[in-house]
Amino acid sequence: MTAPNILQVESVAYDEAAGELILLDQTLLPNETRLLRLNSVEPIWEAIYALRVRGAPAIGIAAAYGLCAVLHAHSDQDVAGFRAAFGAVKERLASSRPTAVNLFWALDRMQGRLDGLVEAPVPALKRALLAEAHAIKAADMRMNRAIGEHALALLKPGDGLLTHCNAGQLATSKYGTATAPMYLGQERGYNFKVFADETRPLLQGARLTVFELSQAGIDVTLICDNMASMVMKNGWVQAVLVGCDRVAANGDAANKIGTSGVAILAKHYGIPFYVCAPTSTIDLACPDGAAIPIELRQPEEIRSMWYARPMAPEGVAAYNPAFDVTDHALITAIVTENGVARAPYTESLPPLVQP
Amino acid sequence: MTAPNILQVESVAYDEAAGELILLDQTLLPNETRLLRLNSVEPIWEAIYALRVRGAPAIGIAAAYGLCAVLHAHSDQDVAGFRAAFGAVKERLASSRPTAVNLFWALDRMQGRLDGLVEAPVPALKRALLAEAHAIKAADMRMNRAIGEHALALLKPGDGLLTHCNAGQLATSKYGTATAPMYLGQERGYNFKVFADETRPLLQGARLTVFELSQAGIDVTLICDNMASMVMKNGWVQAVLVGCDRVAANGDAANKIGTSGVAILAKHYGIPFYVCAPTSTIDLACPDGAAIPIELRQPEEIRSMWYARPMAPEGVAAYNPAFDVTDHALITAIVTENGVARAPYTESLPPLVQP
Repeated sequence: MTAPNILQVESVAYDEAAGELILLDQTLLPNETRLLRLNSVEPIWEAIYALRVRGAPAIGIAAAYGLCAVLHAHSDQDVAGFRAAFGAVKERLASSRPTAVNLFWALDRMQGRLDGLVEAPVPALKRALLAEAHAIKAADMRMNRAIGEHALALLKPGDGLLTHCNAGQLATSKYGTATAPMYLGQERGYNFKVFADETRPLLQGARLTVFELSQAGIDVTLICDNMASMVMKNGWVQAVLVGCDRVAANGDAANKIGTSGVAILAKHYGIPFYVCAPTSTIDLACPDGAAIPIELRQPEEIRSMWYARPMAPEGVAAYNPAFDVTDHALITAIVTENGVARAPYTESLPPLVQP
Repeated sequence: MTAPNILQVESVAYDEAAGELILLDQTLLPNETRLLRLNSVEPIWEAIYALRVRGAPAIGIAAAYGLCAVLHAHSDQDVAGFRAAFGAVKERLASSRPTAVNLFWALDRMQGRLDGLVEAPVPALKRALLAEAHAIKAADMRMNRAIGEHALALLKPGDGLLTHCNAGQLATSKYGTATAPMYLGQERGYNFKVFADETRPLLQGARLTVFELSQAGIDVTLICDNMASMVMKNGWVQAVLVGCDRVAANGDAANKIGTSGVAILAKHYGIPFYVCAPTSTIDLACPDGAAIPIELRQPEEIRSMWYARPMAPEGVAAYNPAFDVTDHALITAIVTENGVARAPYTESLPPLVQP
């Protein structure tokens, strides 16, 4: 199947001939589409640390390809040195974003591949590591595509869709999670009308979601977060699709700040609210949303970030939670790569999470 | 009664000795507190047109004092010339904001005062017009204070209050409407904790409400619009107070975009939602919210206004309604200067509107 409408520029790629990690610098979007070509450890570390690549799946893929890029030029005669260099690069990259679980998962998977090849010469190790990185990316893509297929089955051609923040291709290898059915629908002529919340304070919706969907030729309209109620009241939204950072065993879902409000509006207007989440984000050990810690960020993000001049009095108090928890009672369904879970989630989620 | 905590700088004032209209330039807030002293017609027209003074009551007061300021230096011997000049200034100021009803109302009230003094010499006309302008401002202040008293009776000391946009002192002569009970409560030691939605796209909450409440020593915390759900879920909000641009006969209320979403959240969390509205905003000839026209503004306000650089791809579609309508079923009460109306509004509103 061709995918002509998918964003041509991937967030993470690898140039095999040059041995370079290629990143789309997301901090410059939407004003500049700049590709970074990296093959040494400190610039790769900085790119992850400074959110030039963001989104847990994308970070994991970047770290895996980053290992390949740094080791690409290593001497083919020095097996012991290669293994030592691998360990040093892995350790350094692991320190870039201490909270992103996919980073460690990807690095450990690369380590496992290396450990499994005890007798191999350096060229074979390089080929195996690159194959593993490709496999990590391909698995992410398959998973997102599967989420997209399951979600698409819940939608109709011509539907209006609303999303919040960026659970898009830019945060993953391809397709994204909440955006996956939008891309698949675009391939199949569904003609969705997408409304993207700008998502204050960091504006991932305005800067990233609108960028990638419009690049793909999808009909997308930017709105301020506080306009979602009116757009729904106008009858323009047939489904809400959002991503997810963690799902508790009872179905409570933590996601970007504002998600719970969108869910309440959707319930009020009788619009289905779908959480798109790979099973890796389902935490059955976490009983409910109250057990999910919420990151509080700097007030400065609200008071002056992005602005040419401060937009609130200096020093005024500001409350800036990065995430909120959407009560499971507000969630119509949780869409995973293994299928769709509905209430009661304590019963529907475990079978999807089991391998 | 003293009011030491009220904003020391009024949005509209008049210097009788100098014959000057004094405006606080709201376009520069919160970065600069600059007072404009104006006594000629074009700068006054420009100040209203460019939103240096904003809020329907404040605009009406500014126009009334503006007439006084422009005519202050007029020759005391030339009665016919004075009346002609009055007409010219009035006509020019009336063209500054064609949709603001209070502007015409205030100018017509000044005209009525002038017309009632057929034989008077110029000094008497000047005194009468200034007295009328003072009366317009004083009536606005009394009305706001009465709204504040009625609203305060619905609140308890220590309550957390959430407001949206700026229905504050800056939009009126003093006290504001939705902020009136906050100021009165501050005078009486209520220790309210106020949460102010920043109110995208024009950020009246961040720039104006937070400014005026913090100037008055009121405990105010700035949040992004999408954080209201979490603040309510945290149990920090005991009442929502908002202003209003027009109330229909059935109680549907048009106000700043996002107000209807806040009302839905409040209902979900069981928090009372109060609309503070002078009876002049109640339009009994308008049957319901569907009959209230909604102004659509430029997408550029969302895409790039305020920002140091564009925050969305150039040319992307953006939907930018300036107001939305809150369904009467979501409104706990409508608080006017003449008392508090509750459902059914078709029965409770008319007695309050009758003089």
